[in-house]
Amino acid sequence: MAAAGTGTTGPWEAPVRTLLRARPGDSPADVDARATPGFGGRKADAKPALAAAGEELSELQERLFAHGRTGGDRSVLLVLQGLDTAGKGGIVRHVLGMVDPQGVALRAFGVPTPQERAQHFLTRVRAALPAPGRIGVFDRSHYEDVLVPRVQGRLTPAEVDSRYADVTAFETEVAAAGTTVVKVLLWVSRDEQHARLRERLTRPEKHWKYDPQDVDARLQRAAYEEAYTDLLARTSTDAAPWYVVPADRKWYARLAVSALLLEALADLHLGWPEPAYDVAAELARLDASA
Amino acid sequence: MAAAGTGTTGPWEAPVRTLLRARPGDSPADVDARATPGFGGRKADAKPALAAAGEELSELQERLFAHGRTGGDRSVLLVLQGLDTAGKGGIVRHVLGMVDPQGVALRAFGVPTPQERAQHFLTRVRAALPAPGRIGVFDRSHYEDVLVPRVQGRLTPAEVDSRYADVTAFETEVAAAGTTVVKVLLWVSRDEQHARLRERLTRPEKHWKYDPQDVDARLQRAAYEEAYTDLLARTSTDAAPWYVVPADRKWYARLAVSALLLEALADLHLGWPEPAYDVAAELARLDASA
Repeated sequence: MAAAGTGTTGPWEAPVRTLLRARPGDSPADVDARATPGFGGRKADAKPALAAAGEELSELQERLFAHGRTGGDRSVLLVLQGLDTAGKGGIVRHVLGMVDPQGVALRAFGVPTPQERAQHFLTRVRAALPAPGRIGVFDRSHYEDVLVPRVQGRLTPAEVDSRYADVTAFETEVAAAGTTVVKVLLWVSRDEQHARLRERLTRPEKHWKYDPQDVDARLQRAAYEEAYTDLLARTSTDAAPWYVVPADRKWYARLAVSALLLEALADLHLGWPEPAYDVAAELARLDASA
Repeated sequence: MAAAGTGTTGPWEAPVRTLLRARPGDSPADVDARATPGFGGRKADAKPALAAAGEELSELQERLFAHGRTGGDRSVLLVLQGLDTAGKGGIVRHVLGMVDPQGVALRAFGVPTPQERAQHFLTRVRAALPAPGRIGVFDRSHYEDVLVPRVQGRLTPAEVDSRYADVTAFETEVAAAGTTVVKVLLWVSRDEQHARLRERLTRPEKHWKYDPQDVDARLQRAAYEEAYTDLLARTSTDAAPWYVVPADRKWYARLAVSALLLEALADLHLGWPEPAYDVAAELARLDASA
């Protein structure tokens, strides 16, 4: 179990939310993407550590779900951002895949449709918020609605300001309504990204994952780095903090995100809900029906 | 891999869709819920068999997903029905939990809301159909919209006829549009149901799973058996067959449903999609961006 007193979990030297929390002025360009902050072990140690985290996550997720089914209003929202190949899909598969699919509400955000473009950019995001009791996951998010048009020169600085103001107000409101917001930026190095894209092009079973636009975005890496630096400075709030997760080592990124989820769930201090019926009376009714 | 030639998978004596397919006149009341048809092994053999099925399912699910992302129109829909405690949630957790959450679209159907009641009963179901490339799962389904009101005396025989006519037309249309429909009735015995409900009442961490209505429904078991017999006779079609899965042994039910999904996926004979871009040209562009 997560040690509620210290906020640390399992193999970590300190709470991961402290270790990886974005500080004002942080630039992801300065991140060592191969680093493994706070985890003393190596790749071979990561497998059992991830399995152990999965057991704890499952237990806490089921408590959250139970509360959602009995009138509780808490939920968790994991926002996943990152450059192409940063490993968002692997987090979904290997971290969220460890808990009951019933308790996970996953939503992948693609390029907005013409219909979505006609609405406020937060409308589709609001509609995808997790119900009470769920762990919601956004694979990409409303942040793409600033990052991409900004890098492509389709937003003025005033429009960027306005969107970020909307974003922080929205997230504050979401948090106040009972949703713990955990925002993760998976950060992959230029070289590792090259290797991963190359793998998609050289292995036929990965061809479908490659999109020629990935190279276009790669050529704009400096602009994305600058946009992410600004994003972290403006939108990492106490209500909805950002965590920058070094992601060149997939095993580290998965372990770190599972720890961030565990810490978020442990903070809710959820026991099992009390029954809203008379247990003894129901036992008698049940046995009479045998 | 599933042996495409014979249609059998792994440890099975024959294709599970043949072994468990509902035949006209079948009554679930005649099913031996403790039986393990077609599986020669015991509980200890089920664990490795389920893990092996999970590996195959993951591979085939990823191919399905890849096709969905590249213009393919195929999907799979697993409809789960059963009396309370039959193990629908366990199937979601332990079978669907073995594949990438990205590829699974799960929808649990509760008692219709007043808004849903004002619409045709298939409207909410239609809205929940899996997108191309997905494995959709209905935890309960449109069948509840016949079973429950029928047993409660709120539908006339003519209304039942009319709803089943709508259901078979709807499922035929869904199958023709590219969705393989696999309908599973998990069948639990009266005694096993009693034991499982008792466990929910005697273990505090399971209290939230118990609903006093479960005993009410239990007292109407004979009526549900009759309603299910009629349902199987009227709605098990070639386009959307029913499988009756003995479910007193959870390990058997999970193995059988994973085999039914495997057989459905293997039937699609999906390779990896061909790239829609020029691989050599993209490799050159990528390396130039390094």
